[in-house]
Amino acid sequence: MKAARIIKTKEPLKIEEVNVPKPKNDQVLVRVQSAGVCHSDLHLWEGGYAGPQGVFMKVEDRGVKFPLTPGHEIAGTIEDMGENVTGFQTGDRVLVYPWIGEGTCPACRVGEENICDAPRSIGVYQDGGYSELVLVPSHKYLVKLGDYDPNAAASLACSGLTAYTAVKKASCLPSETMVIVGAGGLGLMAVQLAKAVTNARIAIVDIDDKKLAEAKRLGAHETINSGTTDPVKGIKDITGGLGAEAVIDFVNNSRTIPNSFNMLRKRGKLVMVGLFGGSYELNLPLVPLRALTLTGAYTGKFADLVELVAIAKQGKVQSVVSRKFSLDEANGALEELKTGKIIGRAVINP
Amino acid sequence: MKAARIIKTKEPLKIEEVNVPKPKNDQVLVRVQSAGVCHSDLHLWEGGYAGPQGVFMKVEDRGVKFPLTPGHEIAGTIEDMGENVTGFQTGDRVLVYPWIGEGTCPACRVGEENICDAPRSIGVYQDGGYSELVLVPSHKYLVKLGDYDPNAAASLACSGLTAYTAVKKASCLPSETMVIVGAGGLGLMAVQLAKAVTNARIAIVDIDDKKLAEAKRLGAHETINSGTTDPVKGIKDITGGLGAEAVIDFVNNSRTIPNSFNMLRKRGKLVMVGLFGGSYELNLPLVPLRALTLTGAYTGKFADLVELVAIAKQGKVQSVVSRKFSLDEANGALEELKTGKIIGRAVINP
Amino acid sequence: MKAARIIKTKEPLKIEEVNVPKPKNDQVLVRVQSAGVCHSDLHLWEGGYAGPQGVFMKVEDRGVKFPLTPGHEIAGTIEDMGENVTGFQTGDRVLVYPWIGEGTCPACRVGEENICDAPRSIGVYQDGGYSELVLVPSHKYLVKLGDYDPNAAASLACSGLTAYTAVKKASCLPSETMVIVGAGGLGLMAVQLAKAVTNARIAIVDIDDKKLAEAKRLGAHETINSGTTDPVKGIKDITGGLGAEAVIDFVNNSRTIPNSFNMLRKRGKLVMVGLFGGSYELNLPLVPLRALTLTGAYTGKFADLVELVAIAKQGKVQSVVSRKFSLDEANGALEELKTGKIIGRAVINP
Amino acid sequence: MKAARIIKTKEPLKIEEVNVPKPKNDQVLVRVQSAGVCHSDLHLWEGGYAGPQGVFMKVEDRGVKFPLTPGHEIAGTIEDMGENVTGFQTGDRVLVYPWIGEGTCPACRVGEENICDAPRSIGVYQDGGYSELVLVPSHKYLVKLGDYDPNAAASLACSGLTAYTAVKKASCLPSETMVIVGAGGLGLMAVQLAKAVTNARIAIVDIDDKKLAEAKRLGAHETINSGTTDPVKGIKDITGGLGAEAVIDFVNNSRTIPNSFNMLRKRGKLVMVGLFGGSYELNLPLVPLRALTLTGAYTGKFADLVELVAIAKQGKVQSVVSRKFSLDEANGALEELKTGKIIGRAVINP
Repeated sequence: MKAARIIKTKEPLKIEEVNVPKPKNDQVLVRVQSAGVCHSDLHLWEGGYAGPQGVFMKVEDRGVKFPLTPGHEIAGTIEDMGENVTGFQTGDRVLVYPWIGEGTCPACRVGEENICDAPRSIGVYQDGGYSELVLVPSHKYLVKLGDYDPNAAASLACSGLTAYTAVKKASCLPSETMVIVGAGGLGLMAVQLAKAVTNARIAIVDIDDKKLAEAKRLGAHETINSGTTDPVKGIKDITGGLGAEAVIDFVNNSRTIPNSFNMLRKRGKLVMVGLFGGSYELNLPLVPLRALTLTGAYTGKFADLVELVAIAKQGKVQSVVSRKFSLDEANGALEELKTGKIIGRAVINP
Repeated sequence: MKAARIIKTKEPLKIEEVNVPKPKNDQVLVRVQSAGVCHSDLHLWEGGYAGPQGVFMKVEDRGVKFPLTPGHEIAGTIEDMGENVTGFQTGDRVLVYPWIGEGTCPACRVGEENICDAPRSIGVYQDGGYSELVLVPSHKYLVKLGDYDPNAAASLACSGLTAYTAVKKASCLPSETMVIVGAGGLGLMAVQLAKAVTNARIAIVDIDDKKLAEAKRLGAHETINSGTTDPVKGIKDITGGLGAEAVIDFVNNSRTIPNSFNMLRKRGKLVMVGLFGGSYELNLPLVPLRALTLTGAYTGKFADLVELVAIAKQGKVQSVVSRKFSLDEANGALEELKTGKIIGRAVINP
Repeated sequence: MKAARIIKTKEPLKIEEVNVPKPKNDQVLVRVQSAGVCHSDLHLWEGGYAGPQGVFMKVEDRGVKFPLTPGHEIAGTIEDMGENVTGFQTGDRVLVYPWIGEGTCPACRVGEENICDAPRSIGVYQDGGYSELVLVPSHKYLVKLGDYDPNAAASLACSGLTAYTAVKKASCLPSETMVIVGAGGLGLMAVQLAKAVTNARIAIVDIDDKKLAEAKRLGAHETINSGTTDPVKGIKDITGGLGAEAVIDFVNNSRTIPNSFNMLRKRGKLVMVGLFGGSYELNLPLVPLRALTLTGAYTGKFADLVELVAIAKQGKVQSVVSRKFSLDEANGALEELKTGKIIGRAVINP
Repeated sequence: MKAARIIKTKEPLKIEEVNVPKPKNDQVLVRVQSAGVCHSDLHLWEGGYAGPQGVFMKVEDRGVKFPLTPGHEIAGTIEDMGENVTGFQTGDRVLVYPWIGEGTCPACRVGEENICDAPRSIGVYQDGGYSELVLVPSHKYLVKLGDYDPNAAASLACSGLTAYTAVKKASCLPSETMVIVGAGGLGLMAVQLAKAVTNARIAIVDIDDKKLAEAKRLGAHETINSGTTDPVKGIKDITGGLGAEAVIDFVNNSRTIPNSFNMLRKRGKLVMVGLFGGSYELNLPLVPLRALTLTGAYTGKFADLVELVAIAKQGKVQSVVSRKFSLDEANGALEELKTGKIIGRAVINP
């Protein structure tokens, strides 16, 4: 089978033939229909990313080994199955849950494999979806797609799932105010999900009026341009001076977090998602005095992906696939992403 | 009735006669047997406390009005009751829940009046227990003490409740590691409560070997002297390099928090309690990448005080009352507390 | 002030002048704009209702005392307030939470006063809304209505709240199946609320095709006429033979419960609401073998009424007020309800 | 390897040589040190059990296939591992979690494989521990035992886990009353676990004074002999007439459940565990009127077994192993269990 592989970081992916794995026990071999092209694929390709204080964080220090076939957003059909697989048939259309753990740590025990102490994620720690076929360790990591479009489905496994986890962690009640900071892909997905799973008032903060308008179209009740208005004042104004019950910060950097923190109501919750780096000088006594909570959201668990696919099938979220590449064009896909040419989402159709 | 009142901040409390209030509706008049002398009484007396960046935080800016009878840790007997009180009788021995809210904010609606947006706390925003009698707004703020010692009971309403809230927020499972930072009164109470309500391994961190030994006697499994050992390394060593599932920091200042943060396991929770001020340069991407949670604990809710009194009645926590004062000696009690002469807890017995 | 009072059960309500109460402490005097006419008002009037095995359950045995002004669904404006009320002003439009408890029992401690051991409900254990004015024990039992129609609001405090509690107890995830048994007022409210707060598939069971059609219009995905189809088979058919994750039975009698029980999936939850009497021969080992849960829902807590009013203000539920009576016509209102002439809801506008 | 297998129901187990399986992917081969002999092994041997209305429930109708090696309580050492196992080494002493599901149903998705819609339990649906070696489908079903006695550990996987699940479902707060009905092996385990994980008052009900005395020794605060006293009156007497917050019925038959139901407090929870058959005429309106919950507990989830082993290692539960058999004596072990000669627990040491 053909795969686009990172042989060495910073060098072009090599499109090569690799052996077709034979699924055993409850393993499943999936024929890839669509593999999303994600920013973290770029990090793998470049061998790392800029961490706090500008230090380059090498992915190899976190256990990644090359050669590696990237691609963690995978929709496809079942090609072959191990002898202990049940509930699936050859040809079933499925979305792959890639955030696989080793199985016994406290996170894995409660089904939160995405924050396993020793992750085995597909496309990161084992070969992924930039390939004609991918071996999935168990049928229990598959979500049936039915007729749902595989190109639209792919990114649910990563950015969609992250947005859903964040919205669930924010957990607002009817009439409470949920602020979403950043109206990019994640933020716009979060607006739609917040509308679908809460009855909260949704406020969106960004510096781009076009993105804010799109957020409004998708369900946001209030929009605040933080380039032209003080967003803390903006949120205080619409909450009777009290602040918001929850803020989800999809940027999570030194510029956004001071505002996100200061717009919290007593007992408020700040869900931190973005990985853009930076730090924040946290005023320590304010955390107990105002009974605040700061919590991180990182991808999501399998059970939540099942819920998210169900919501997507109901037509409640739109994911925009703007560009499609063949497997041979994998390097081009990453280049375009790197240079900012991709609006919305790109996928590879092997 | 006689009361020791703050007429003006920084001036001696005035021991004076005030009118006996007449309880109406569901109000209850309680004859004070024991009123705990707490550090926050000192803050009221001094008119404020040192906040972040050394700024003096005036209590009057937070809504406190003088003259005021301080005292929020109150055990006593029922003297008189309004016409709508049920379930209590004159003479019943009770502990007063002082963290009263205005009743309709989101916190009050779920019984967390202690973090009300517009607090009415007894001994802070209305007259408290440095008095022969205290008017409680409703019988619903009373916990029956039965034969339990009122002097031992008084501090349960404040420091005991804070420690209990923190232990519950840390919520460790059997065999998980709960780290308690600071082996003072709150920390030692937390050790006992952690032992009573979890099956976690309890590790205590302090710089005083005598306090650590006392913590061990009360149930801590591991002790770490952070004056002589790196506490992060200490916790990593006893957790297979992974870190602790929960850390409760009763100091919560610029020196303790860096360690408390760095000793957390993936998915770990940091419960921040202390009000000693200061700040911490939070590394933003680590919060999502490690799925960490930071949360503040401030006193506690009425339902938790009921639980705590039940645990105390079972003999599972010891609170040390070392000094007893009369109402006339109220100024002396505060002076001794201010100059650090009180070991354990002082009470006023009017 | 004028009030319509039950002086003696089974005799006409007496329209009489009673003294205007003077609010003290945190009591609030509310001028009634709309008082819902509920079936349980009939039970009070008749002095009881048919219990299990046809035994007449006397309300006086449950602590009700006459004379009594009935009426527990009350919307109105604030007329006067006690000295300790904050957050409200004279003239504010409010909905009254009537399910008041004595305040200290375990239910009250966690804000579930509706299942207090010693209830003080307005219109049942103390004078209610069939009156020009009603005394509410505390401002904390008031929900602000703003511009929301008081006639539509009134029944939220009883039937609306019961439906909301049931839907929350059923707590279905996206794509799970929630069955609602009974498409009467409660059931139709539940369909709308299930649509507003879940992404579950909603199936409604009734014997009346017109009601089923209305349920479909309001958001039900599947309708089953249990007069013409086996509802257990119907639910099994649409769930791949597995059964429903949750069933809310608003009838809860000997005819509906066998079906409701048998259509549950493993781990399923049966929420029992109706008070129509009867019994069910429960197969005991099936409860553990299938890990089932049966649970009762009875009115709801204050915090949920706040949420419900917020949802109603968003226009997500419709309550149909079909008949309006003056206070002088109170006997006529009860007679019409008794003889089944009221479709939807009747209110009294004093 | 040697195994004791049920070839045909009601015929003696055949001690025979079977092929040693070769572990693949994340499968683990465990050398059995101790296999508990459980009543449900008897049911397999006899081909079924008496269900409701005395109907014989055939295990083959529930998907069991013969020949089968029984034994679901398995402690042993790791003999061999598939290529994808991590975190374990050959020779590690482990307890096997036997309640394995197929992996994708809603129960499996949240880690409750024990109530999977299509179970694959070891010793029931696939070969179990009456054997020198057993193949476990994944390392994720293993709990490390360290030095803990394998004979004492074995029954934790079944009866211990069931008791723990029931105690957690009862979830009593400090000073609440938890009633345990039945002081047999499960009930006595539950008393110890209730003492270890709650601060509730524990009351035990049985008809055998010797068992009640043992329960008292292990931590029960109140004992009620239901052969000589009305247990409903007994519980009402010790709860001020209100009833118990939770009742766990380990018998769960037509004689015990009426009492267990009637001793519940408003909002009370009845946890039903026993599989002794029978039915109960449930008074339907009482469930909502008293806001009661009835819920079944059946074995438990993997995460709870991890917690339970941790508690057992702390010395907080005692399990009595009274008889040890060799693999060749497997038929004798079942015979003795059948004729009631086993007090406590029997194990097979292959």
